[in-house]
Amino acid sequence: MTLAPQKTVEAAADWPDFDAYPVRHRLTVAQSEGRAVAATWDDGLECRYHVFWLRENAPDSETTHPVTREQALQLLEIPDNLTADSARVDAAGFLEVAWSSGEVSRYHPGWLRAYSHGDESFARLPERRLWDPKLQAEVPRFDGPQVLAEEAAFDRWAEALYVTGAAILENLPARPETIEDVPARLGPLRETNFGTVFDVRSRAETTSGAANSNAYTAMALPLHTDLCTREYKPGLQFLHCLENAATGGESVLADGFALAAEIAREDPEAYETLTRLPIAYYNKATETDYRYEAPMFGLGRDGELEEVRWSPWLRAPVKAPVEEVDRLYRGLRRAFALAEEPRFQVRVRLEPGELLGFDNRRILHGRTGFDPASGSRWLRGCYVEREELESRLRILQRRRRQREMEA
Amino acid sequence: MTLAPQKTVEAAADWPDFDAYPVRHRLTVAQSEGRAVAATWDDGLECRYHVFWLRENAPDSETTHPVTREQALQLLEIPDNLTADSARVDAAGFLEVAWSSGEVSRYHPGWLRAYSHGDESFARLPERRLWDPKLQAEVPRFDGPQVLAEEAAFDRWAEALYVTGAAILENLPARPETIEDVPARLGPLRETNFGTVFDVRSRAETTSGAANSNAYTAMALPLHTDLCTREYKPGLQFLHCLENAATGGESVLADGFALAAEIAREDPEAYETLTRLPIAYYNKATETDYRYEAPMFGLGRDGELEEVRWSPWLRAPVKAPVEEVDRLYRGLRRAFALAEEPRFQVRVRLEPGELLGFDNRRILHGRTGFDPASGSRWLRGCYVEREELESRLRILQRRRRQREMEA
Repeated sequence: MTLAPQKTVEAAADWPDFDAYPVRHRLTVAQSEGRAVAATWDDGLECRYHVFWLRENAPDSETTHPVTREQALQLLEIPDNLTADSARVDAAGFLEVAWSSGEVSRYHPGWLRAYSHGDESFARLPERRLWDPKLQAEVPRFDGPQVLAEEAAFDRWAEALYVTGAAILENLPARPETIEDVPARLGPLRETNFGTVFDVRSRAETTSGAANSNAYTAMALPLHTDLCTREYKPGLQFLHCLENAATGGESVLADGFALAAEIAREDPEAYETLTRLPIAYYNKATETDYRYEAPMFGLGRDGELEEVRWSPWLRAPVKAPVEEVDRLYRGLRRAFALAEEPRFQVRVRLEPGELLGFDNRRILHGRTGFDPASGSRWLRGCYVEREELESRLRILQRRRRQREMEA
Repeated sequence: MTLAPQKTVEAAADWPDFDAYPVRHRLTVAQSEGRAVAATWDDGLECRYHVFWLRENAPDSETTHPVTREQALQLLEIPDNLTADSARVDAAGFLEVAWSSGEVSRYHPGWLRAYSHGDESFARLPERRLWDPKLQAEVPRFDGPQVLAEEAAFDRWAEALYVTGAAILENLPARPETIEDVPARLGPLRETNFGTVFDVRSRAETTSGAANSNAYTAMALPLHTDLCTREYKPGLQFLHCLENAATGGESVLADGFALAAEIAREDPEAYETLTRLPIAYYNKATETDYRYEAPMFGLGRDGELEEVRWSPWLRAPVKAPVEEVDRLYRGLRRAFALAEEPRFQVRVRLEPGELLGFDNRRILHGRTGFDPASGSRWLRGCYVEREELESRLRILQRRRRQREMEA
């Protein structure tokens, strides 16, 4: 594709995607600096935009595919020596740039501001609220049928699930298929070697097959996160209760991010160890052999905590010098001991028809032991990725911005 | 659980998992150092094992669940001040340790050596073989029906898929369900917002729905990896050809790891930029809004390349100072230009019944444009995680070790 000189191509939309960009700030001045365009906003923010950055994000339909809104112009089709001949704020408040290659591009001020370096306010996910060990944390509860029927109720549940890290839906049918229907409203279910849906009951009691995980026995399960052996641990776990007549078998939850914050506060050396030294996780099975090594507390590029990988029973021998192994065990024991303190634990006895959802990369879960002879206990579980929830929350924000633009 | 003093508990097996550990080295001497056990091997390797490390990996059935082989003893049940009272090599060549807490544990020399710091030979995955731009790379081909019928043929295909990063199965039925049946032999299919199986044909020609990705048009697709907008890009992609009578529509492949190596060699500054500066990827859609930021070349903790995230058309505006944006575009343009050189590209025209598999975190793929009026073109695709392939290769190695032990 070569572009004709002096051509302003019709744009399918004011910006190169399907989002909504209310104008909260106006451009006051713009001028070319050759390889960049400098612009000033009405609140004083001064920005410089790279010519390639502007050029490849132009909304015209030769640059942006008018149907998919994905890039149609390839980066290498832009000349190496591209400069902005001129730049100005037009009568409609758009940034208009005339390129040395002959085209003219226009940028909507709402879109341009949203992606401006120096303004981090656009489309941030809500802040996570850590469970405060000084207060008794509670898992927020919602009416399941209402959440499924009303979009606003659904969004309140989704936001609570993200912010608190856990939420319960009540009054759902105690039917085996509920576990597939409800979480799928967020996004595709994640299948693993345990299947798309897994049944948590004591296998020894219910089938002739042998238990292939401690989860499928009647033993107490200490706090843990699921599938630590996988590079991408499932992000959201859902457990739907079908039967819970057994003595014992309460669900126990703890906020791994709150535990990490407490360890960072009271024992910075242990925290540093647990963010740095990898722990080995192997599954124990005859037909699969998944392995992954990662620190217990996974940090993102910005040093912020992104995930907790917490497993009392799938850890494998770490291959490291004995001094490092010693540091690791000190950190691990500190963390495990803290998680046993009641102030960090929340107990929930799920009733038939209740669906517990939680962030498996943040919230630890476990259960008290139960007596399978005293009555039946049957939970069905599945996974959905955290990205699906984040996508949903972004669409919710987009709808709010759309309403702001229409108002 | 409290442990009785002076108790040697029966072990369900010689080691705490289902793997196989041939004895390739013998222990010569062992002695307690209190909080560690020192041991020497017959090839001179000297190792020190931490007491917690040994204690929690003991194979006896109170420490290791005899059915699941997962930890049954909780780490905090081990006393803080545990020491080894004594350690010795017994008549069978096992390491025997008597604990201050009263138990005696025994460790098989094959198992102990496998997890010894200083010996990295155990259970390594095969080395990846990068495509050499000086030779014409070829995608290895295998007979599909044979791969499905014979375990050894299946394993040769799986190993080639890992080592070369791509492999083709020939002579499979050109039926729509083949794409689900064959990749599922490796592990669960990964469902995404495009479904579990996706049909790649020009949607404008075949359905009334609008294309929601450039992939669903007839346009040429530059080299890319799929789903860069997702934190965990699918690891393996499979494309099964059902029809390919259109003019054009050849598949183009390139080894992203070989490209990275070349950039590191000829332009270290660009390589450094592409391993460090995050690129923003957003999907463009009306009902989902996936976003992820990561450098093009993702490095593991050891600084080794783990994945390539390469998208010409799903990049979003990067929010960074203009100097950084400039560095990023220099690196990106260098990489995109290199990938266009024919010496880095392999072209394959898939015939009906052929199934191409490749590592979507390493191998770039694209296609030449095609003329939908000249004939039909229909590929069906799906994803399986790279971890499934790695698990399979580890089980293959385990079988080899089992045979070595039986020999």
